[in-house]
Amino acid sequence: MNPKTLEPLFNYDHMDRKNGRSNGLTGQDILSVDQFDVDTLDYIFTRSCEMREMVRRVGSTDLLRGNVLTALFYEPSTRTSSSFIAAMERLGGNVIPITQGVQYSSVSKGETLADTVRTLEQYSDVIVLRHPEIGSAKAAADNATIPVINAGDGAGEHPTQALLDLFTIRDELGRLDGLQIAMIGDLRYGRTVHSLTKLLLHYDVSLRFVSPEILRLPLTLMNEVIDAGIDVRETHDVADVIEKADVLYVTRVQKERFSDLAQYEEVKDAHAITPEVMKRAKEDMIVIHPLPRVGEIHYSVDKDPRAAYFRQVQNGMFVRMALLAAVLGKA
Amino acid sequence: MNPKTLEPLFNYDHMDRKNGRSNGLTGQDILSVDQFDVDTLDYIFTRSCEMREMVRRVGSTDLLRGNVLTALFYEPSTRTSSSFIAAMERLGGNVIPITQGVQYSSVSKGETLADTVRTLEQYSDVIVLRHPEIGSAKAAADNATIPVINAGDGAGEHPTQALLDLFTIRDELGRLDGLQIAMIGDLRYGRTVHSLTKLLLHYDVSLRFVSPEILRLPLTLMNEVIDAGIDVRETHDVADVIEKADVLYVTRVQKERFSDLAQYEEVKDAHAITPEVMKRAKEDMIVIHPLPRVGEIHYSVDKDPRAAYFRQVQNGMFVRMALLAAVLGKA
Amino acid sequence: MNPKTLEPLFNYDHMDRKNGRSNGLTGQDILSVDQFDVDTLDYIFTRSCEMREMVRRVGSTDLLRGNVLTALFYEPSTRTSSSFIAAMERLGGNVIPITQGVQYSSVSKGETLADTVRTLEQYSDVIVLRHPEIGSAKAAADNATIPVINAGDGAGEHPTQALLDLFTIRDELGRLDGLQIAMIGDLRYGRTVHSLTKLLLHYDVSLRFVSPEILRLPLTLMNEVIDAGIDVRETHDVADVIEKADVLYVTRVQKERFSDLAQYEEVKDAHAITPEVMKRAKEDMIVIHPLPRVGEIHYSVDKDPRAAYFRQVQNGMFVRMALLAAVLGKA
Repeated sequence: MNPKTLEPLFNYDHMDRKNGRSNGLTGQDILSVDQFDVDTLDYIFTRSCEMREMVRRVGSTDLLRGNVLTALFYEPSTRTSSSFIAAMERLGGNVIPITQGVQYSSVSKGETLADTVRTLEQYSDVIVLRHPEIGSAKAAADNATIPVINAGDGAGEHPTQALLDLFTIRDELGRLDGLQIAMIGDLRYGRTVHSLTKLLLHYDVSLRFVSPEILRLPLTLMNEVIDAGIDVRETHDVADVIEKADVLYVTRVQKERFSDLAQYEEVKDAHAITPEVMKRAKEDMIVIHPLPRVGEIHYSVDKDPRAAYFRQVQNGMFVRMALLAAVLGKA
Repeated sequence: MNPKTLEPLFNYDHMDRKNGRSNGLTGQDILSVDQFDVDTLDYIFTRSCEMREMVRRVGSTDLLRGNVLTALFYEPSTRTSSSFIAAMERLGGNVIPITQGVQYSSVSKGETLADTVRTLEQYSDVIVLRHPEIGSAKAAADNATIPVINAGDGAGEHPTQALLDLFTIRDELGRLDGLQIAMIGDLRYGRTVHSLTKLLLHYDVSLRFVSPEILRLPLTLMNEVIDAGIDVRETHDVADVIEKADVLYVTRVQKERFSDLAQYEEVKDAHAITPEVMKRAKEDMIVIHPLPRVGEIHYSVDKDPRAAYFRQVQNGMFVRMALLAAVLGKA
Repeated sequence: MNPKTLEPLFNYDHMDRKNGRSNGLTGQDILSVDQFDVDTLDYIFTRSCEMREMVRRVGSTDLLRGNVLTALFYEPSTRTSSSFIAAMERLGGNVIPITQGVQYSSVSKGETLADTVRTLEQYSDVIVLRHPEIGSAKAAADNATIPVINAGDGAGEHPTQALLDLFTIRDELGRLDGLQIAMIGDLRYGRTVHSLTKLLLHYDVSLRFVSPEILRLPLTLMNEVIDAGIDVRETHDVADVIEKADVLYVTRVQKERFSDLAQYEEVKDAHAITPEVMKRAKEDMIVIHPLPRVGEIHYSVDKDPRAAYFRQVQNGMFVRMALLAAVLGKA
């Protein structure tokens, strides 16, 4: 008698695994923003809106009943793990929460990421992975027979953040084409800036990059933007973009990036979003931020209806619900 | 086009938010024992009994299906977080468990409590907060559009503990009026003693306070008791109250409070509840304790049917179920 | 009025608690492999197969709806806790996850294990305990009125691991009688080796023990094997058993056991399972391992269909589902 081949835990009715058909996402890993075209983005955003309607009406559904998500966080990220947990629970699925950082767990005792992933996929239908090393999500996905969703791999990607950023812009302003979007802060190391920029290249937008000299957008990405024929400018001061921008995408500038603290203080002031700055902005623009913030948007701005960053947080849950339903074949 | 105002995730059908009508609790924060009057206490206790019947009969219900509770514990408290988690789950709701102490999480990286709360409320319908700083629960509630339940804010309050203490007395002895209740141990710093005492002022009870001299009830609270016209006495020895007490509310005396360790040992002996002490107590009295204990009630007392402290633990789950259902508008 | 006796939270319809009748497991603690006879093992394995069919068909069931499992892990073990959590969730039950190590929690502040268990049983219907001290599971069970499942008590037992090991052998090879089973690695300290060996004494198997001299099977267990009339041999080299073995049960050899590191390296090589070693093995044999591995089975072996260790991981979930349903009276 021959040993058996392991059958998949989850029976993907309507798809080829890792080569899914319906909506192109069923059974797929979500590793990078590079894998999304405009049609797929449209699909995700339509589903995200449906998820929002459902949650506001009844709170949860049974769509993913019988499905288990493993939240495997090698570094804790309460915001992201909570968003995925709530998303899965509101879809009627279950969660294995490994969210306090695996360094406290025996999983880390010499075991490779591949073995950990191949273990946890025996219990679950989808794995959400946060890991400090670039490329780890891809490595995990290569070893998994169930979908892996990259929830941040160090300096690499954080694709669901970029999706929720893009969804928020479209949802708040009703469109993407024709918008002028200003990215502000640490454009050199800011993972979310890079990912969102890449997604925006699919649309007819203008981009304004506002940063201190030492934190300018990386050369290769800047060239990609130029090659795409996008209207683009770089500047050091928010004042240069505030009047025409439809979107301010503000990010944190970390003190540790500066050898000269006086320079850091100067930069901080030049980039801060205050009620005074907001007075010069358009009436129908929005301010968004991947959070957490540490002062770059003043708390007094929160009451401004154009401050969209907490609505953005909630959108993250809806976008993740849409993604989970899609990769698990419940389109 | 104007940016949208964020709609509440949870649609409170029958109430004004933070000014709820039905039962006075719908949409309310639970921050302090000061917010409860006798009618509200009666309502909570009636609902707690119903919850107990339901759990004993079928284990769980669907009452809070579609609702998500965030358990946000800045310091771990397994007893309290487990009680709230089980309560929410037995009501058919879901939980985001942030229970191992947020210091291990990126949430704490410079983010204000206000921002953390405003983030987590995007995913959930109610937040249970444990935080080491007095006033933190109020601060969180002021920033939240969903109900916040205070699960302990440092030296401040822990109102659900006081409610379960009071419920246990009423449930075990069938009434509150006419009872003589002795509080024993650290009456100066004991948060639960202060809260329970305040709730008892609504009833026609006698109070006996038993503590070492340096741990007597704070002056202001003692004056409140006297002003309420309550029959009250203070003493240093359990022996003085054991024969007439209907309730012994025992609390832990922490060694750290004493500069003289010999004095601590003496106090420990004078306050210990042993089988010998219990022999002198009434037949229909009860011993309760907020737990954990570290010797102030001897383990040999556990078999005594008057030892009610583990029944008290279970009551905590029922009281929290009643509260969760009430603040979420499922009265 | 007399204080009430605490009624059990869970109403075990068809059993005497801790003396259950139906299937012999209802209401029982699972503490040691010694408590299983062949009939009970048959029952568990039949139920495990049913659980597998159910999960593959629909993912989850409502069998344990209304039941709450407390996962109380004094040391983190992601593999084991995740397996139990997924098992309970796929049965429709709920989980209180205390899985990151209780040392971070106030439960540990001077409270005895007995008090912690007596607290948590107020909220839940079954407790799964991992604790570093031998005998702790028994101590917990003696203090609990609900079933306690031992998920590892230090150098003591880990009975559910032994059950899933045995189930995997039977499931992969279709039988237990007549098999030659080789145990490889650290046979002296390997808790899982000892437990599986004890279970195998119920069957007509041959045993081969392969270890370095300093890690041979303990004398008392070896004598038990001999007394059971089992065909048994000891050796230092996998080469001696590879051609006839139906099962290789490989375990980790810890560097710390050796004072002479050169000796460790030599042992490591003599015990390693490589594609070359596998070439000499039977076509219908299997390799299993309790995991995590740290090199004793080469990664290049994973593609061999005889490598059954990840299927074994999944079987763990099914076996635990069967056990949970059984002890909670849902046979």
